[in-house]
Amino acid sequence: MQLMRIGERGSERPVVRADDGSLYDLGTVTGDIDGAFLAGDGIGRARAALAAGALPQIRDGVGRRIGAPIARPGKVVCIGLNYRDHAAETGAVLPAEPIVFMKAPNTVIGPDDTVLVPRGSEKTDWEVELGVVIGAEARYLDTPDDALNVIAGYAISNDVSERAFQLERGGQWDKGKSCETFNPLGPWLVPADEIDDPGKLGLRLWVNGELRQDGTTADLIFGIGHVVWYLSQFMVLEPGDLVNTGTPAGVAMGMPGQPYLRAGDTMALEIDGLGRQQQTLADA
Amino acid sequence: MQLMRIGERGSERPVVRADDGSLYDLGTVTGDIDGAFLAGDGIGRARAALAAGALPQIRDGVGRRIGAPIARPGKVVCIGLNYRDHAAETGAVLPAEPIVFMKAPNTVIGPDDTVLVPRGSEKTDWEVELGVVIGAEARYLDTPDDALNVIAGYAISNDVSERAFQLERGGQWDKGKSCETFNPLGPWLVPADEIDDPGKLGLRLWVNGELRQDGTTADLIFGIGHVVWYLSQFMVLEPGDLVNTGTPAGVAMGMPGQPYLRAGDTMALEIDGLGRQQQTLADA
Repeated sequence: MQLMRIGERGSERPVVRADDGSLYDLGTVTGDIDGAFLAGDGIGRARAALAAGALPQIRDGVGRRIGAPIARPGKVVCIGLNYRDHAAETGAVLPAEPIVFMKAPNTVIGPDDTVLVPRGSEKTDWEVELGVVIGAEARYLDTPDDALNVIAGYAISNDVSERAFQLERGGQWDKGKSCETFNPLGPWLVPADEIDDPGKLGLRLWVNGELRQDGTTADLIFGIGHVVWYLSQFMVLEPGDLVNTGTPAGVAMGMPGQPYLRAGDTMALEIDGLGRQQQTLADA
Repeated sequence: MQLMRIGERGSERPVVRADDGSLYDLGTVTGDIDGAFLAGDGIGRARAALAAGALPQIRDGVGRRIGAPIARPGKVVCIGLNYRDHAAETGAVLPAEPIVFMKAPNTVIGPDDTVLVPRGSEKTDWEVELGVVIGAEARYLDTPDDALNVIAGYAISNDVSERAFQLERGGQWDKGKSCETFNPLGPWLVPADEIDDPGKLGLRLWVNGELRQDGTTADLIFGIGHVVWYLSQFMVLEPGDLVNTGTPAGVAMGMPGQPYLRAGDTMALEIDGLGRQQQTLADA
């Protein structure tokens, strides 16, 4: 079972996708897939309603816009340089502890929405990441194992980045991470208990059909539980928050010639078990 | 006229404060002082309702908890090193353009709420700042003058910061800016049209009764309009967002002996025309 939000931007409806791909209206269970839903065992209630045959099937879902699988997050927290190969390609030393930055929450868009190259941008770049959606408040968690209990689920996240804004315009990365449309998410949220091991997922990203990133979460420097536990020492994570856990090697910044994104380019992203998303670039 | 939110955390009610200090229930005009209220000329409607005598007076408001004057922001964007004297005391060079970082939106608390020293913290510091609340969507604004038209109002903001987390734990500042309770805001929101010149406001902060910061927004490197215009080139600002515009000299990090905050300490903050807030520190 996966959770989706389908409909025009700002008026998406909650949907359950069964493992056979059929879609069911979740509107009788919740108004939205948001923090309150996740904190109130919404995933368990959705699963029970689906199993009981209590959800009306949606027959006209195919071809409609897919939104991000969660409502606007309270915050989007990101981990930088969390794969050895990506740290190496950017010329950075391996971090001794997680590097933390943020994206503006209104960067989150649907998985196949248009991504805008910001005005004045010459270095718009891609980053396939395992997105972690928080399902319970997390404050000073005791251990990384405890952290796995506050994760609602996982989704593909594209941490689109403008490298000049990020690195050459004052030094704090947020400036190059928060541009409009810079966080495609989805197509769906996979409940945490349906992923055997989030530390063994392949991630891939193509630009214009060419494979650019081909990594695995097995190469994470700081694993998923560690990251969420660590963040909880510095901030209160809340249900519905999104954590982008870092990207493997293969971004434009690390490639010969640095082939940054231009209007008309396409990105496609996959993570094992989490589906596929794709975006076309346009000028802002 | 000022706008307030009064009540226990999470169940604050919207209130108008008349210039004579009397309080009026704004609940017939809006459910909350949020982005939708501000974008829909809520301030104008509140002013009209107050003038028409249409708002019930609140006689038991004194002594009740004051919340932040706006609902949870969609984002909290901050400008670093925006006063010459503060840049100097931190040993930093003057920025060529605004330095941008973020705080987690759930750091925003009431003006007099307890501020928590994070676990493991030895360098919790204070920062009095002019807080700007956005009143209309801002995306690629043409000029700094245009930016003044998207500002709903102003409030005192305490950009509490943990300097070791901020500067010694990976380099991105957000880690030391997003701890629980790290953004007291208020006591009220003053509508933008009731401030003659946001570039001529004195700001003061006392710790345990001793004056530590005594600056003026006349010393801003990048003025209020410039900051909001600039941010709109890198992200979409939305109604209800909070912008912390920087702090003048006098923080603990810049003082002899670096007298960082400890449980039991008190902070008091004032900005001309924006009232006064004060907090006591406790251990998280």
